[in-house]
Amino acid sequence: MTNTRFDTTCIGNAIVDVISKIDDDFLTRENLVKNSMNLIDEARAEDLYSKMGSSVEISGGSAGNTAAGVASLGGRSNYIGKVRNDQLGDIFAHDIQASGVNFETPRSEQGAATARSFVLVTPDAHRTMNTYLGACVGLGPDDIDPEIIAASAVTYMEGYLWDPDGGKAAFRKAAKIAHEAEQRVSLTLSDSFCVDRFRSEFIDFIDGGVDILFANEDEIKSLYQTDQLDVAVNAIRDSVEIACITRSHEGSLILQGDTNVEVAADRSVDVVDTTGAGDLYASGFLYGFTNGRSLAESGAIASIAAAEVISHMGARPAVDLKELIASRMG
Amino acid sequence: MTNTRFDTTCIGNAIVDVISKIDDDFLTRENLVKNSMNLIDEARAEDLYSKMGSSVEISGGSAGNTAAGVASLGGRSNYIGKVRNDQLGDIFAHDIQASGVNFETPRSEQGAATARSFVLVTPDAHRTMNTYLGACVGLGPDDIDPEIIAASAVTYMEGYLWDPDGGKAAFRKAAKIAHEAEQRVSLTLSDSFCVDRFRSEFIDFIDGGVDILFANEDEIKSLYQTDQLDVAVNAIRDSVEIACITRSHEGSLILQGDTNVEVAADRSVDVVDTTGAGDLYASGFLYGFTNGRSLAESGAIASIAAAEVISHMGARPAVDLKELIASRMG
Repeated sequence: MTNTRFDTTCIGNAIVDVISKIDDDFLTRENLVKNSMNLIDEARAEDLYSKMGSSVEISGGSAGNTAAGVASLGGRSNYIGKVRNDQLGDIFAHDIQASGVNFETPRSEQGAATARSFVLVTPDAHRTMNTYLGACVGLGPDDIDPEIIAASAVTYMEGYLWDPDGGKAAFRKAAKIAHEAEQRVSLTLSDSFCVDRFRSEFIDFIDGGVDILFANEDEIKSLYQTDQLDVAVNAIRDSVEIACITRSHEGSLILQGDTNVEVAADRSVDVVDTTGAGDLYASGFLYGFTNGRSLAESGAIASIAAAEVISHMGARPAVDLKELIASRMG
Repeated sequence: MTNTRFDTTCIGNAIVDVISKIDDDFLTRENLVKNSMNLIDEARAEDLYSKMGSSVEISGGSAGNTAAGVASLGGRSNYIGKVRNDQLGDIFAHDIQASGVNFETPRSEQGAATARSFVLVTPDAHRTMNTYLGACVGLGPDDIDPEIIAASAVTYMEGYLWDPDGGKAAFRKAAKIAHEAEQRVSLTLSDSFCVDRFRSEFIDFIDGGVDILFANEDEIKSLYQTDQLDVAVNAIRDSVEIACITRSHEGSLILQGDTNVEVAADRSVDVVDTTGAGDLYASGFLYGFTNGRSLAESGAIASIAAAEVISHMGARPAVDLKELIASRMG
C-alpha cells in the first residue's frame, strides 16, 4: 500500500437538491413510487418544478453527502464529480469545499446545466427523488486522477454513477488504479431501481473487485433476485471482503468472512427527512474503518451519523460530526 | 376606492438568501455588527462566501417574504421585484409563484446576477445579513404597473428599496398611483442603518403620504434621532394613519390616532433563526387589516405569523399560515 493522502475518495453524480414538502396525493398524481430515485429529462424537470411548492436548495448527491460526512467526522476526504460553471455549480463547489472536502474536478464549460434532484418529502419523512443529471453526463475517465486514487485508502463509488455515459468508464478506471495501488474499492448499490438497471454489470463488477459493499435490504435482494435476505447475505458474503447491509430503523448488519456484526440503529432523534441516511451511514463506517476502528465501532459511528442527517431537512450534516461522535462515544 | 384585485402589493429587492450557521467569532473577524444588514459589492460577496461554511439557499427578500406570508394566510398577494434570467432568478420566481403570489415583473436579460444575501445565523438565533443587490438595481418606474397598484388595497414597500438607484423612483411612482386610486401606502423602515442612510428622505416621504408604517424600536428611534421610544412614538403617531412598532419578544404596539393597542408576542416556539420576523409580522397585520379585522386581531395574527417564521431556518412560512391561524384563533 502506498502512503495515503485521503481516507476516502468518493466519486458520484454532483447534484444540488431542491427539497420540497408534498403530500402523498402529489406522488399519486405524478405516478411516483415513494422512496424511489427517478431519472428525469430537462422537460420533465421543468414540468415537475412548476408543480412543486416553494423549495429549499441544498448541495447533495449521494457520494457528495458521504464525502461531506467523512470530512465532518474528521477524516481526510476527497470528491470527484462534474458540475457546470453556473450558479448551481458555484453552490455545489462552495459547499463541498467549505465542508472540508478536497474537490478539484474541472467544471464543464458548455452543455447541460449543473444537475439537480427534486427531493419530495412526504409527511412521514420519506423522500422520493427525481434527478435531472445535467452536467453529470460529462464525467469521464479523464476526471480520474491516478495519483489521487492511488493515495486514497478507500475509493468509494455510488451505483448511480452508472447512469450517465462516462460514469461507468470513470468507475472502472478508478477501481483498477486503486487495486494496483493496493487500496480498497467500495460501492454502494444506491437504489433498487438502479440495481434493476445494471444488475448483471454490478454482479460482474462486485465479483471482479469490490472490497466493501453498502446496500439496503431491498437493494441486496434485488441484486440477487431473491425475496430472502439470508440468501442474498450469503451470496454477498462470498463476493466481497466486507458488506454493510442497512435495515432502516432495525439497524444494520456488517459481514466479514464468517463474522456477523449486528449494529443497532440510533433511535434518539425525531425523523424529519430520511434523505442521506444511507450516504451518512457510509461516511461513518468508512471513517471508522480507515481510522483503525473495529467493525462494531465503525458501525456505531455509522448509525449516529445516519441518525443526525435524518433529524433535519437536507442530506448533509448540520452539526460537527466529530464533536457529536466524541460526545456520544467518548 | 376602486375595486381591489389584491389585498397587498409588496415591492422590494428580490433576493435569494444564502443561509449559514456561524459562531460569534466570525462576525468579529469580519467586522460585522450583529443583526445588521450590510450592502456588499460583488468582490466582497465572493470573499465572504469563500469564508462561509456550507449553506442552504432559500428565496428571501424582505417584501418578498411579506408577500409569501400574505398568500399563505389566504390573502390576495402581488409582488414586484427584479431578478435576472439566471438560475437563482428561476428559483426566486418559482418559489414566490409557488407560494401563491402573483409575480409578473420582467427579468433583466443582462447585467448583474440575481441578488443574494448571505445570512449568517449565530447560535443565539440572531441573523446578520450581507446583501449583494445584483439585478435589483435594474428595478425602476417602468416595472410599476399602474393598474395593479390601483387595484391593490395596500401597496407595501421596504425601506431597503431606496438602496438601488431605480428603487426610489419606482417607490414614489407607486405611492402616487395608490393614493390617486384612494388605496393605502405602507412602508417598513427595514433596518436602523437603512434609516441612517435615508433619514431625511424617509421623513419627507412618510409625512407626504405613508398610511401604515412598520418599524422596530431601533428603527423608529433612529428615524427621529432620539433615545426615547415615547418621543418617537408620539412623532410617528402624528405622521401616519397607523404605525406598528415591533418590540421583539416584548410584542408590539399598534398606534392609530389616540388609540394604543398593545399586542403580546407569541412565545410558544423555540427561536431557531430570527430572519423574517418583521417581514411576517407585516404579512399578518396587512392580511388582517385588509380583511376587516380589528387592530388587535390583526396584531395577534401578526404575532403568530412572526413566531412561525422564527421557529425554523429561512424567512418564509414553512406551514400553511391560514390553517395555523385557524387552529390558534378559531
